[in-house]
Amino acid sequence: MADEPKALDRFETPQLVLDAVRLERNLARMKTRLARFGVPLRPHIKTAKSIEVYRPALEGAVGVAVSTLAEAEYAFEHGARNILYAVGMAPGKIGRALKLKDEGADIIVTVDSIDGAQALAARAGESGIGVVVEIDSDGVRAGVKPESEEALAIARRIDAAPGLVFRGLMTHAGGSYASRSVEDIRAMAERERRAVAGTATMLREAGLGCEIVSVGSTPTALFAERFDGVTEVRAGVYMFMDLVMAGLGVCAFEDIALSVLASVIGRQADRGRLIIDAGWMALSRDRGAAKQPVGQGYGVVCDAAGRPLDDLIVVSCSQEHGIVARRDGKPLDVQDYPVGTLLRILPNHACATAAQHGSYLVTGEDGRAFARWPRINGW
Amino acid sequence: MADEPKALDRFETPQLVLDAVRLERNLARMKTRLARFGVPLRPHIKTAKSIEVYRPALEGAVGVAVSTLAEAEYAFEHGARNILYAVGMAPGKIGRALKLKDEGADIIVTVDSIDGAQALAARAGESGIGVVVEIDSDGVRAGVKPESEEALAIARRIDAAPGLVFRGLMTHAGGSYASRSVEDIRAMAERERRAVAGTATMLREAGLGCEIVSVGSTPTALFAERFDGVTEVRAGVYMFMDLVMAGLGVCAFEDIALSVLASVIGRQADRGRLIIDAGWMALSRDRGAAKQPVGQGYGVVCDAAGRPLDDLIVVSCSQEHGIVARRDGKPLDVQDYPVGTLLRILPNHACATAAQHGSYLVTGEDGRAFARWPRINGW
Repeated sequence: MADEPKALDRFETPQLVLDAVRLERNLARMKTRLARFGVPLRPHIKTAKSIEVYRPALEGAVGVAVSTLAEAEYAFEHGARNILYAVGMAPGKIGRALKLKDEGADIIVTVDSIDGAQALAARAGESGIGVVVEIDSDGVRAGVKPESEEALAIARRIDAAPGLVFRGLMTHAGGSYASRSVEDIRAMAERERRAVAGTATMLREAGLGCEIVSVGSTPTALFAERFDGVTEVRAGVYMFMDLVMAGLGVCAFEDIALSVLASVIGRQADRGRLIIDAGWMALSRDRGAAKQPVGQGYGVVCDAAGRPLDDLIVVSCSQEHGIVARRDGKPLDVQDYPVGTLLRILPNHACATAAQHGSYLVTGEDGRAFARWPRINGW
Repeated sequence: MADEPKALDRFETPQLVLDAVRLERNLARMKTRLARFGVPLRPHIKTAKSIEVYRPALEGAVGVAVSTLAEAEYAFEHGARNILYAVGMAPGKIGRALKLKDEGADIIVTVDSIDGAQALAARAGESGIGVVVEIDSDGVRAGVKPESEEALAIARRIDAAPGLVFRGLMTHAGGSYASRSVEDIRAMAERERRAVAGTATMLREAGLGCEIVSVGSTPTALFAERFDGVTEVRAGVYMFMDLVMAGLGVCAFEDIALSVLASVIGRQADRGRLIIDAGWMALSRDRGAAKQPVGQGYGVVCDAAGRPLDDLIVVSCSQEHGIVARRDGKPLDVQDYPVGTLLRILPNHACATAAQHGSYLVTGEDGRAFARWPRINGW
């Protein structure tokens, strides 16, 4: 990319655009919030997958969280040492985690079953790899029940294995994404906190140290009122924000740092709709906001400067086509949008939309692109 | 990849697996079907995005269809000359298409509006780039109405431009994906055929040659009963097939050549469900079968050999987690699936699932992987 910042109309569409001013503001918001409670952040890099994006979030952080070993290796190459792989360990991946440990990473892996712990124990040799037990705080995904015999049994199994070091507990209140109000989010945050803090107390009483007591999701991280008993907070989406977060009341449209630049490639005057060159390949198939009180189709349509347009959304998608129409079903006046008009689409789910792209086109205060930041994908 | 074929348990998960035997059968089926009608195929490479996958489909084909200029450039590098870019042209991409034309590709671009045609005419110089007009045969996506004044006006505008060559018409009956029966698909195929054949007749009467009269979607290509007036058929999904096609009656589960290999990473005995390491990042967020009489969640679960298991589907997904449960909601017996068990997930939509991966792990008759075929992504 040339040194001279360039206007967005100099780029082909579709393009994933990252507003560096909003990114910086989002990073600062989380930092300020957690600093108030004196609890450190562990940025989850699964959303950004780019050191250029998450580097400023590392300042004062305890380490990083990752969702794949590819992210772990990437983070390690870029200087991270304390790396929590926050997805249950598949036995087939243990060798790759041990290699990272060998190379000097303090890689901490996750299990939520006795057989998962056994598989790790059988292959860990004398590595001393760290392990956390996942606790299920919301009934949505993985983990064992808080303060359960099962949690204790798994922790004991890990602690007894010569090659494993029991490090503590983690949970993720992904259920907070389905909240209906900020009060709901606060309640979920408290449930998330209690789930691990209570279990940690139980394990400590049983003689098992819990150095790590990790919680986190963007909504709960930003709205929790207590972090007592918690040693760190994980979050990833907060860097970019998205329509799901806006629908939850976690952010405003003006905080969403990510958008997809697209061109009008057709217009249907009779039906009052436009066709753009951003389909699900560029936007993703994520309809995260569909269950919220206000659905957003495949994204909210903005002008080229990023200002939301009068109630336009992407109502449907095929691979490389998006259909733009009014949310209220009335025909839009296509005369205002000749073929070639640039639009920007705010994403439902930042993680999913970013994953469809290999890099970010980064814009500064003047709205011009000053950099291209690569991101990784794959496993 | 080593020369020696390897069992699938030698690979990390998630992995996109391509069954070369099923692929070959699917390619042969389409070839045989169209040969019966004497109509040539133009394979659409948007699904496969890999020369190794689509090379056998080129035999006897008139050229390729692409959904991005990246695919066009890739196809050209791999020997294709006749390339139909079957998505409406954004003015910002004209330069890149002209470059391909300069380099020797017979690149044919698509427009469905007067302003799209003007933008092309203004920048085409003396290139002689080919242009087709898109006709809307199903009311779902792009294109102008069949036999409309608008179609005629656009064709004339193209014909009058010194740098453009009017080549004919194309349409895509994507609406066939919403068919409820094979009879519906047949009716849609006839509607697709009439839309372009009728418009071609109208244009020819007006003195405009229509060398290309292109139709196509996998369902209509396989069930059409007439191709009179059609010069070529486009299809892409047919190479892999998927659950949407199976739900339409276009193929059987046993024809689906694509699957995602995953590992059990957790199991919840109390809830009777499993957690696997294939979430939406590996499976995509596509819920294409959700509107069909039998929904398939995020995919049908098979054993490691690819045999569908007793009514198990991926009921929900997060980024790197999939939740496997019984379709009927009864608890599944998790004892049968210890952590580390390999499973394979049949995709809702082959294009979307393949797009989440950088390569195919290719298996032969013995079920062992004998090759890794790279695929392209991006624009």
